[in-house]
Amino acid sequence: MLRRYFPLLDWLPHYHRRLLGADLLAGAIVTVMVIPQSLAYSLLAGLPAIVGLYASLLPQLLYTLLGTSRTLAVGPVAIIALMTGAALSAVAEPGSARYLDAALILSLLSGLMLVAMGFLRMGFFSNFLSHPVISGFLTAAGLLIAVSQLGNLMGIESSGYTLVTRLASLWPELPHLNLPTLAIGLGTLAFLVFLRRRGRSALITLGTPLAAADLLVKAGPVLAVVVTTWLTWQLQLIDHGVAVVGHVPSGLPAFSFPWQEASLWRALLVPAALISLVGFVESVSMGQMLAAKRRQRIAPNQELVALGGANLAAGLTSGMPVSGGLSRTVINHDAGAQTPAAGAFAVLGIGIVTLALTDWLYFLPIATLAATITVAILTLVDMPTLRRTWRYSRSDFAAMAATILLTLLEGIEIGIIGGVTLSIALFLYRTSRPHSALVGRLPGSEHFRNMQRHEVETLDHVAFLRIDESLYFANARYLEDTLYNLVARRPELEEVVLICSAVNLIDASALESLEAINARLKDANVTLHLSEIKGPVMDRLKRSDFLDALTGRVFLSTYAAWREFSSAESR
Amino acid sequence: MLRRYFPLLDWLPHYHRRLLGADLLAGAIVTVMVIPQSLAYSLLAGLPAIVGLYASLLPQLLYTLLGTSRTLAVGPVAIIALMTGAALSAVAEPGSARYLDAALILSLLSGLMLVAMGFLRMGFFSNFLSHPVISGFLTAAGLLIAVSQLGNLMGIESSGYTLVTRLASLWPELPHLNLPTLAIGLGTLAFLVFLRRRGRSALITLGTPLAAADLLVKAGPVLAVVVTTWLTWQLQLIDHGVAVVGHVPSGLPAFSFPWQEASLWRALLVPAALISLVGFVESVSMGQMLAAKRRQRIAPNQELVALGGANLAAGLTSGMPVSGGLSRTVINHDAGAQTPAAGAFAVLGIGIVTLALTDWLYFLPIATLAATITVAILTLVDMPTLRRTWRYSRSDFAAMAATILLTLLEGIEIGIIGGVTLSIALFLYRTSRPHSALVGRLPGSEHFRNMQRHEVETLDHVAFLRIDESLYFANARYLEDTLYNLVARRPELEEVVLICSAVNLIDASALESLEAINARLKDANVTLHLSEIKGPVMDRLKRSDFLDALTGRVFLSTYAAWREFSSAESR
Repeated sequence: MLRRYFPLLDWLPHYHRRLLGADLLAGAIVTVMVIPQSLAYSLLAGLPAIVGLYASLLPQLLYTLLGTSRTLAVGPVAIIALMTGAALSAVAEPGSARYLDAALILSLLSGLMLVAMGFLRMGFFSNFLSHPVISGFLTAAGLLIAVSQLGNLMGIESSGYTLVTRLASLWPELPHLNLPTLAIGLGTLAFLVFLRRRGRSALITLGTPLAAADLLVKAGPVLAVVVTTWLTWQLQLIDHGVAVVGHVPSGLPAFSFPWQEASLWRALLVPAALISLVGFVESVSMGQMLAAKRRQRIAPNQELVALGGANLAAGLTSGMPVSGGLSRTVINHDAGAQTPAAGAFAVLGIGIVTLALTDWLYFLPIATLAATITVAILTLVDMPTLRRTWRYSRSDFAAMAATILLTLLEGIEIGIIGGVTLSIALFLYRTSRPHSALVGRLPGSEHFRNMQRHEVETLDHVAFLRIDESLYFANARYLEDTLYNLVARRPELEEVVLICSAVNLIDASALESLEAINARLKDANVTLHLSEIKGPVMDRLKRSDFLDALTGRVFLSTYAAWREFSSAESR
Repeated sequence: MLRRYFPLLDWLPHYHRRLLGADLLAGAIVTVMVIPQSLAYSLLAGLPAIVGLYASLLPQLLYTLLGTSRTLAVGPVAIIALMTGAALSAVAEPGSARYLDAALILSLLSGLMLVAMGFLRMGFFSNFLSHPVISGFLTAAGLLIAVSQLGNLMGIESSGYTLVTRLASLWPELPHLNLPTLAIGLGTLAFLVFLRRRGRSALITLGTPLAAADLLVKAGPVLAVVVTTWLTWQLQLIDHGVAVVGHVPSGLPAFSFPWQEASLWRALLVPAALISLVGFVESVSMGQMLAAKRRQRIAPNQELVALGGANLAAGLTSGMPVSGGLSRTVINHDAGAQTPAAGAFAVLGIGIVTLALTDWLYFLPIATLAATITVAILTLVDMPTLRRTWRYSRSDFAAMAATILLTLLEGIEIGIIGGVTLSIALFLYRTSRPHSALVGRLPGSEHFRNMQRHEVETLDHVAFLRIDESLYFANARYLEDTLYNLVARRPELEEVVLICSAVNLIDASALESLEAINARLKDANVTLHLSEIKGPVMDRLKRSDFLDALTGRVFLSTYAAWREFSSAESR
């Protein structure tokens, strides 16, 4: 029991020196790598840079304590930062004290919701985000984030959380773009893209050992940060209008609890729910993927509790909503982290920086951070899936396209809600007009197949109708229409066998329809039979009066019905 | 084409004298019967009595022109009147000019929506109202209407559109109840209940011919109206505080179009949508039932157009939202109406009353109308279905109970929206955790059944897993878990056959899960096979790369797979 809620009891007792070495190295690498990222994501959320560092401390520690993934790294992530920025700027002025309070409230609310969902074992909720909706959402959010960084790359102001508002705010400022900033931004961008595309092979060609080449490629953003910071300092680029991170207060975050702002709590309920859901889905799918690689398992409901704890910690320590981050997790995993202790060591490292070394960040140009975000985020934009989905299923594609368009044009919340609603509606629509087939016997076998697809034997006075869907309220009337049309079309019919091999459920509405069908076929002198009813469906039918009223019989197999009627017909 | 939109072209050319006689008689009977009802329902909606008469004129004519049911009678109905009252009193003060305008706007909006849905062929929308939700809604609405009439029966004021607000408004007024009113109310109530329960057999015992007895029972409300009106006049009961219909302006309705009130149009959008939906469902299910009795058919999408036309007519002629009414239709049907012409004759009759005879209604007591509503409406309260549904399906019962409680406590709109949402959510939840079964071969046959329910043969290294649900986003992860657990539990497994006889759909999310399962089983040296894939599902799979990546084979039948593996195993 204790183990279920504190998974660290699984690994801590077996901890030994070899693991310690690996985890310490991973922790050190993560420290260096995620600092620029954390600063960048807090700026993306419209918050002071230091908030990103705060949010990388206690939340990660809580996750170390409670999480079931061995390598997931928790902290500020791009999508959640974008959602945070959109939610906060709807309720407060960026830069105001209320905006900071709102960030804490958003983290706390999201933490409470996640913990509650975990205790209520509601991890299955995330299943309602279909893959096309998630993929479409990530693509659109990636584009939105990239566009949101255009202003920073050029040294001009921009705002807004939809494609249109962002571009509209950018356009009139274009003449005021700052050339040194643009140079830093584009330079970093070009460097990072080159490193990502060609870096590894170039380094290997130059004789760098394989492992070192991998590490250097990953360290690209850190290198860019160091170089551009040094340049900005040396060339006094601040005097030429280059925006920098500036003064970051050193010291650890203060505990705070903004309980007074009742209206903010209410206003942030829906954004907090969406942030929780998206953060959970992103985090769990990554955790599962990595766990699978090492044949470990993660427990979704405990992950909810752990992420909830992390967000509560963020809310209490001047942070921002957090989640399992794609890039920081991959860095941690690839750096060889063996246990969650690696995360704790990274916290130690980032803590030291936050305590003592924030002055070193003074000259770090915002444009550099913007370039690192842009390069990282564009991996989310996934066009091949769009094409593949179009080929496979028009309705999945419709859900995906709607999610992308709504997210880009109407914002993140509408995008994700619209996508989920549409995918559910399309599923319901499909099941409301179920496929059905008149089947016949494959000659010489006990198998029955669609008359229109196979050469099969049929009987004149008997129709074998297979319904390929559970029968429930949305298709109950459709079933009636199908059967009435069948009987109207074939006046010679005497028996109808409804093959229920694909019927996994008959709800109360469908039961009433079956009763109506039975009565109406009886009036038309047609007998209704059923075959191949599943066990659970049969159990349920026995609790109603339908089987007593049924004019015909219930056959275990369609073949049994065939035998019965074919011998009767040949007589 | 013309016939599709003007179904009267089907019957008018063949109209002859015998039909005319029957229709004229039915029209006359309907005229007399529905006048009290129409007055009562307009009062229920908080509107002047005359509005109910107006709404029985042009709307019925439009339906005669456009409707596909031969006997449906259109006009004010109880549920729609209640919904109208709730919607109007939320946006305007009862008795004000704005309230009257709102009634017209509600009718027009509802008419526009119905016509639009008809042209877009969206009749299937009504399928999402499951039987338990409809039945629960009717029960709760019936109770609400009965409670709403308590005040009128006792001669005191009451208001509100939930159980609590209505009773709360009634309670403090109880001491002021008016005894003569109560006497009229209870007397009429007792008379009508007696007539309904015992009247027919009593009359027959007294020697009344069968047909006349039937007619007299149906004429009960008219008799009550005549007698109580006469009593009120003779005994000058108005002076003793008995509320009466009073002065009803004679003459036909004026055409009007309240286009100025933009805020009202917006505020009434949701109520209008719900009124359209409920009215359509009530009307169509009744139409279908009656059509079935005479082996006729109705066209749901044309019914939408016809009902829409009726509501537009109501909105343009000082009326209120209308629908196919249960009691007026039954009266029309039982009175022997043969074609929609009967409806037109009733319009003529009611028109004459409206033009010339409204003075006769002056002394009609409101309490009499309240009693007729109460008796008519309590037939909607359907407790047996509640019990039957509980026995058959807990989740259908949950949807039904939620609809009843929400309607009673939170009002009609919340009730119906909540019920629909819950029934959809429960369906999705059920399909998100599909039933699956490990199956084995029924000895000596080609059939496979659940290992836990039947004595079957199995193979050691092969698992046959039947999934009893379509595979889609909500259960894609559940499928993964099921398979991973299966493989983890049985380390000797070499082959897994996924039996897809009940899989009617594999969406893009489930396809990705199948790809993941295939890859992960491959890592564990387990081969994945599929069997009994349906035609449409197979067609779709061929459009993806999955079949190329599949480690195993696709078997036409499970038996084919069994033959393959059992011979391999015996070798």
